[in-house]
Amino acid sequence: MPDALPLGATIGILGGGQLGRMLSLAASRLGFKTHIYCPDADSPAFEVTPHKTVAGYDDRAALPAFATAVDVITYEFENVPTGTAEFLAPLKPLRPGAEALAVSQDRLAEKAFIGNLGIAVAPHRAIGSVADLAPALAALGSPAILKTTRLGYDGKGQRKVQNLAEATAAFAGLAPHPLVLEAFVPFVCEISVVIARGLDGAIAAFDPAENVHRSGILFTSTVPAHIAPETAAGAQAIAARIADALDYVGVLGVEFFVLAGGHLVVNEIAPRVHNSGHWTEAVCIADQFEQHIRAIAGWPLGDPSRLADVVMENLIGTDIEVVSADLGRGIRPHAYGKIESRPGRKMGHLNRVASKTPRK
Amino acid sequence: MPDALPLGATIGILGGGQLGRMLSLAASRLGFKTHIYCPDADSPAFEVTPHKTVAGYDDRAALPAFATAVDVITYEFENVPTGTAEFLAPLKPLRPGAEALAVSQDRLAEKAFIGNLGIAVAPHRAIGSVADLAPALAALGSPAILKTTRLGYDGKGQRKVQNLAEATAAFAGLAPHPLVLEAFVPFVCEISVVIARGLDGAIAAFDPAENVHRSGILFTSTVPAHIAPETAAGAQAIAARIADALDYVGVLGVEFFVLAGGHLVVNEIAPRVHNSGHWTEAVCIADQFEQHIRAIAGWPLGDPSRLADVVMENLIGTDIEVVSADLGRGIRPHAYGKIESRPGRKMGHLNRVASKTPRK
Repeated sequence: MPDALPLGATIGILGGGQLGRMLSLAASRLGFKTHIYCPDADSPAFEVTPHKTVAGYDDRAALPAFATAVDVITYEFENVPTGTAEFLAPLKPLRPGAEALAVSQDRLAEKAFIGNLGIAVAPHRAIGSVADLAPALAALGSPAILKTTRLGYDGKGQRKVQNLAEATAAFAGLAPHPLVLEAFVPFVCEISVVIARGLDGAIAAFDPAENVHRSGILFTSTVPAHIAPETAAGAQAIAARIADALDYVGVLGVEFFVLAGGHLVVNEIAPRVHNSGHWTEAVCIADQFEQHIRAIAGWPLGDPSRLADVVMENLIGTDIEVVSADLGRGIRPHAYGKIESRPGRKMGHLNRVASKTPRK
Repeated sequence: MPDALPLGATIGILGGGQLGRMLSLAASRLGFKTHIYCPDADSPAFEVTPHKTVAGYDDRAALPAFATAVDVITYEFENVPTGTAEFLAPLKPLRPGAEALAVSQDRLAEKAFIGNLGIAVAPHRAIGSVADLAPALAALGSPAILKTTRLGYDGKGQRKVQNLAEATAAFAGLAPHPLVLEAFVPFVCEISVVIARGLDGAIAAFDPAENVHRSGILFTSTVPAHIAPETAAGAQAIAARIADALDYVGVLGVEFFVLAGGHLVVNEIAPRVHNSGHWTEAVCIADQFEQHIRAIAGWPLGDPSRLADVVMENLIGTDIEVVSADLGRGIRPHAYGKIESRPGRKMGHLNRVASKTPRK
């Protein structure tokens, strides 16, 4: 492709957590250099490349120097400040682009964007003030989920509410405002589709994963998901429509609720490699990290085919200690090199690999 | 295990080529830091960690500083000077140990060691002077291969000779002396076994690979090899005996000639991860790099099971350009990040993955 980066080019990554680290490792396997930009000097991604910038996302001296040092810029998390993205985009290609960031940073903007494509999202109401709660609850029923529109992750920034009193208390405890009240969706299971879209618009979707959460944090992703083949194909098609509509470049995660009968409701999207795609590392020809790097480098996408069945399990807090143990058959570990194993902190993951289920 | 390194410990690696680079990437996936020691400032392994020493292997100031900075020391090539190994070994654990280095650095010592285990090696004679050539040729027949005992790799340091005149000419052109004359072994195919041995003596062998060379450089490794199951098991058993005899810790590569009837002759051993084991990266639960890191860290070995059939193909010189192309189905690339693609230089590899052949 005409805009393809040459071997040896430098990928700039905003964010130094485990996703940035795994992106850097994948870029290294493809012959690229990487440069990590992160305000936190202890970032795990700093351990996998000699090129780093420790500076704030609003540092107008560090940002242009970073842009000069790299050939393309990507990010490992969707909360890169809009101002940072707008500042960097004219200096070097920013992939995925600013629109994907803007849409996915705000739950209301995200639901509006997806809803406008004719894709189902959870019924919801914007909550600008306490006065909005009563009519919203009346319309959506209870229980419902009150969420921040911005900066929520791993179950943070949201509360399940049963009535107006709980909603009023939750409103006071959640910030920043405005909030969004979402109807509780009676799902049979939760799935996600991780999909890559190239600079040329080519699409490569991984098989859907079935996700189980504990305390709001992803616990396991199982592939294949226990859904009908039509449901799987439908979820991949929806993810592709969203990626196309955003003129997206890179890997996109799309989370769904699956209702009785296989009806699909989009829960949220993430403009980045996704925790529920970590299974691809163990069993796919090209994993999600390689796909993201190939896409943002302007290279043709790799093959997302899956060689085996797999269950990915997050290692939270002291769970990580299992990595150095006798793991037994079929288990492939990944530790993120984080120094401190705080409770609730994602420290690594395991992939439990099993023979592939014959297709029905 | 009692001597197990903790998560976050630092692996010191002597040598900054692609093997050191891939060892570093594997160590990062297991939550370790790495520190690369190499005299060449442009080493590709320097791009995958912030910790490096650019110094000669005889630098008696840099070596102790390196030992202080790391928790265990390993190497990516067998030609680490014996003096360097002896200097470092008392300072930090050196794995594999000095005996493996000493044996594998010298073809005569290697053949003597393996022969003393009752394992077949190619008939050979030491050649200290030109006068040794005629009786050696008479004993071994022709053609024969005249080789340096030290520092040979990728077909360098050896010549096929048909008669005394050719042998005499070759003797003058090969250095350092002494040399070794090896009988030509009429092999049906060449295979290798990559095997890991843990600090606790546990063994985990990968399936044998069938290797094809071009111009003395490994071209392809195919798994499964076209050999009988008994031959495969026999090769793995021989590799295990050699590893046990060396009290080896880490990954060891053992190359074999397979003769008619499945008779096995050991060609040479390499006390390190091996080019003919790069296929493990694409299709095994734990690849050779992870196994090596687990072994030298004192961790239990991983599972060497294979999920698919595979052909690994080296990318030499400008072959590397294919990595950024549309690779098609089943192909997983790896580029080593080398700046200059000189002819004959190993720049990367591809793994061509196919469904697993049912076991006969």
